[in-house]
Amino acid sequence: MAGRGELKLLSTWFSPFGSRVKLALHLKGLSYEYVEEDLTNKSQLLLESNPVHKKIPVLLHRGKALCESMVIVDYIDEAFAGAGPPLLPSDPYERAIARFWVAFIENKVTSASSVLLVEPWFRMLDGTRTRAEMTDGVKQMLAAVATLELALGQCSMGKPFFGGDSVGYVDVALGGLLVWVLASEALLGVKFLDGDRTPLLAAWAERFASLDAAKAALPDFGRVIKHAMMRRGAAASALAGNN
Amino acid sequence: MAGRGELKLLSTWFSPFGSRVKLALHLKGLSYEYVEEDLTNKSQLLLESNPVHKKIPVLLHRGKALCESMVIVDYIDEAFAGAGPPLLPSDPYERAIARFWVAFIENKVTSASSVLLVEPWFRMLDGTRTRAEMTDGVKQMLAAVATLELALGQCSMGKPFFGGDSVGYVDVALGGLLVWVLASEALLGVKFLDGDRTPLLAAWAERFASLDAAKAALPDFGRVIKHAMMRRGAAASALAGNN
Repeated sequence: MAGRGELKLLSTWFSPFGSRVKLALHLKGLSYEYVEEDLTNKSQLLLESNPVHKKIPVLLHRGKALCESMVIVDYIDEAFAGAGPPLLPSDPYERAIARFWVAFIENKVTSASSVLLVEPWFRMLDGTRTRAEMTDGVKQMLAAVATLELALGQCSMGKPFFGGDSVGYVDVALGGLLVWVLASEALLGVKFLDGDRTPLLAAWAERFASLDAAKAALPDFGRVIKHAMMRRGAAASALAGNN
Repeated sequence: MAGRGELKLLSTWFSPFGSRVKLALHLKGLSYEYVEEDLTNKSQLLLESNPVHKKIPVLLHRGKALCESMVIVDYIDEAFAGAGPPLLPSDPYERAIARFWVAFIENKVTSASSVLLVEPWFRMLDGTRTRAEMTDGVKQMLAAVATLELALGQCSMGKPFFGGDSVGYVDVALGGLLVWVLASEALLGVKFLDGDRTPLLAAWAERFASLDAAKAALPDFGRVIKHAMMRRGAAASALAGNN
């Protein structure tokens, strides 16, 4: 078991990618030091630890830096194989299926949610992203979620998680995004995880959110909404000031 | 060792992603049946094997389908661990470093090369991609290659490959793209792998191209150039016909 001095996570409280790393750490029962980064004034440690991208999350293990959220999750699963249940199955084919769905989430869900959420107001307000594009983002997200509904049915085979009886690699990849998906539903007035259209995924989301690891790792929903509204307001003021 | 009936690869001869899978199969000394796909008229087997993306490459192992080039490379490394040298190292930290650089190649080199190559003429001719964007593509590629030059120095530590003494996971990811990078140099009149600016990478490319696995797996340079010119011509004719 890693002692407190061994693992240090650099992230920001609202980052869905940082949430993935936190999820993996909590699922493995690993204690770690958490360092909140100010993305407008990044620490020297962050800049030195991720010189290529200069982005959070970064996990330091005994001073060695690891970057890219799912690469870090892989690392945690391998370096602490004895701690907690494995995130990836042992069978090569089942591992490949999990990796396929994580690639799908990275290409389809992460990109759609960034269209919807991370910068939508900035872009809409400054005219570089139109309402039509926002609608395309919604359409892409609905299509991605419909595919994941089928994937969940196939992967879980009636069990509660993508990983089967316990939370696995795909659950962590998608679960890290969960609060932002729910926040986008609230802010856009669109339901992505829907009891009628995506019953398995909607039940999965409730089940996932109720896990101790999720409670510890995911940002507070209300605080995310406030943060998003604040960014929206700041963007609007900045643009009004420029006009 | 897999028998001829066990492994079947669906791809197209010019696909850099298909080349990665071929590289891994040849490096592991695995025999396989190769099925050339016509992307304008995809086989039922391809559509059924990759229902989510309907894209090549697909590897079938005893009838089970695997999709996404680097997921397939991972699978080959794990399912045929006894065949040939491992592509990924065994140490979790070294594995994470290799995965980090593959993510970099996917995000920076693959995207830049698709800007440069896969569809540039179509887009330029129909006005959806400008000459300025093409120049940005060149700049992105030059920046990516400069970063990879540093990565190669760090990863190889004076040894011939990213994987050290033998070809590894990063070599396969980048090596699959090699002929297209060289073709883009020829077609655009820009040098990306340059003896002065990127001496390590230029030497790596020569060393990689001379491997038996590369000779067997990579498409012929002249044929790729002809193919790219033909697509350029077809796009120009189609647009001229539409005007």
